[in-house]
Amino acid sequence: MEPLKVAFLGPAASFSHQAAIESFGSSAQLLPHVSFSDAFAAVQADKVDYAIIPCENSTNGSVVQTLDLLADPSGLYSDVKVCGEHYLTVHHCLLTRKGLFSPGLQNYGSMTKLYTHPQAWGQCEVFLERTFRGIERQDVSSTSKGAEIVSKETTERSGAIASRFAAEYHGLDVSEENIEDKANNTTRFLVLRNVNSERTSRLSFEDVKVSPAQGQTSVTPTAQKTIISFMIRQDCPGALADALLIFKIKGMNLTSINSRPSQIRAWKYVFLVEGQSISTSENKDAVSGIIDGLQNVTEGCRHLGTWADQFVSV
Amino acid sequence: MEPLKVAFLGPAASFSHQAAIESFGSSAQLLPHVSFSDAFAAVQADKVDYAIIPCENSTNGSVVQTLDLLADPSGLYSDVKVCGEHYLTVHHCLLTRKGLFSPGLQNYGSMTKLYTHPQAWGQCEVFLERTFRGIERQDVSSTSKGAEIVSKETTERSGAIASRFAAEYHGLDVSEENIEDKANNTTRFLVLRNVNSERTSRLSFEDVKVSPAQGQTSVTPTAQKTIISFMIRQDCPGALADALLIFKIKGMNLTSINSRPSQIRAWKYVFLVEGQSISTSENKDAVSGIIDGLQNVTEGCRHLGTWADQFVSV
Repeated sequence: MEPLKVAFLGPAASFSHQAAIESFGSSAQLLPHVSFSDAFAAVQADKVDYAIIPCENSTNGSVVQTLDLLADPSGLYSDVKVCGEHYLTVHHCLLTRKGLFSPGLQNYGSMTKLYTHPQAWGQCEVFLERTFRGIERQDVSSTSKGAEIVSKETTERSGAIASRFAAEYHGLDVSEENIEDKANNTTRFLVLRNVNSERTSRLSFEDVKVSPAQGQTSVTPTAQKTIISFMIRQDCPGALADALLIFKIKGMNLTSINSRPSQIRAWKYVFLVEGQSISTSENKDAVSGIIDGLQNVTEGCRHLGTWADQFVSV
Repeated sequence: MEPLKVAFLGPAASFSHQAAIESFGSSAQLLPHVSFSDAFAAVQADKVDYAIIPCENSTNGSVVQTLDLLADPSGLYSDVKVCGEHYLTVHHCLLTRKGLFSPGLQNYGSMTKLYTHPQAWGQCEVFLERTFRGIERQDVSSTSKGAEIVSKETTERSGAIASRFAAEYHGLDVSEENIEDKANNTTRFLVLRNVNSERTSRLSFEDVKVSPAQGQTSVTPTAQKTIISFMIRQDCPGALADALLIFKIKGMNLTSINSRPSQIRAWKYVFLVEGQSISTSENKDAVSGIIDGLQNVTEGCRHLGTWADQFVSV
């Protein structure tokens, strides 16, 4: 069989790349995509079997680029559905050129410059304040990009804050590990597929995904998550509460709500509602029941996918 | 009387500065604050009478820094409440050094570089593609900062994308006006006060604010907005739907919901719910009724303010 094609949010050695390997293994053909919309477009055009993209971080909250593409006000990605999720714990490391510094000795007095993504500075403040106060900081577009720059330097004594995975990919030393301020900084990724793809309908994400490591299995193996989007009719007081009540009546517990500008009219929103339900023989039609109910009180409501809940309580 | 002290999100000539002048007039003492948290801290410490900060843009959605400070999981800003709002239409202009280019002639062939905030590039794409394809773009921390840089250059032939207000403040020519792709790009600002301040309790925002321009009065002068935050108890299915139903029962129409990481535990959220109600003699206790009801089904629920709705339908 031809290997699975999986789009991830690039560059190579990004956290999305790591999530793709953890989900699909290294036998899949993993393809970097430079933007969120490129990854969505690749699924819509059936150029890849799956895409894996970040949707939420436990510290920083929702990834709005993903929400906006799921909300899809122009109908560009009407065949794209969520079919799975993956949780990745984010660990930051200090990476340096091979042999330049002795690991763990903290003899960084001669270091001249650090590279990382702006968000990573904020996540490693305690370590940076203690070890690198006043050092020149250079923002880069991704943590992996910083690692790449350091790996190509020949004279500069610089470092990058990035993952162990990026160190392996770019051939760098891991001089310090787990330098993040907050343990359990986790990113949730969504797995996307094209609803018209025969290949992924025969080989669902649950069938192809790499078995989780021990202790990583979901606490509620029959739990499912569902995401649905809709807009509220203007001048219809109470409509949002009415819409959300439908989820409750149909036995779905709301786990998150996000509102994003619809781009159709100022101050008109698309709501993205995610819920959890336990799959039983009685409620197997819950999602279609919710969609039917929503069509009476909302505009443009759309089922964006249902998948096995992978959440592990920590 | 001593002039009102008003904190705005700096630097000088920012959109927040413009919103502060439109709201409080030029007789108030307007004080730039470099970060969102500085503005909140100034109100909490009673160093200023009011602060005005952006909370939402009609194209880009919520301003998460403001939401996180309102959610306030550590209780740093327990005396800060929202007491008003202001809508500002965002117009971008091309600003250049006095006399360097003839306004409107589009003879920009010799221009070498443009400065603006990353978000403004995206909002002016059509103009930039037509007039400045391939020109060097320099990101700056605010549109006003870009205008300041251009005003201080002596030999470079550069331009900044910023407001007419920034042009006046920094003494620049407005070479092109309203270069944004989308009309009606509007930012909503919140006005904050300290609940323990005697001065602002005697002089409410409604009393001190500058009268709106003709045609800018609210269509529903008796409408009020309220913002309330709460967390959902874990393992309590349906609790979010129950919480939102309370707003409906008490006659408040939900206008927006945002969820932000609580920073207490991964994947535990603070919900920020905004609603609109028409003030009548019957429902004047609606907010306290909602708070009472929420206390039974949520954790840490907090009334973050009620104010006169300024929304103008466009």
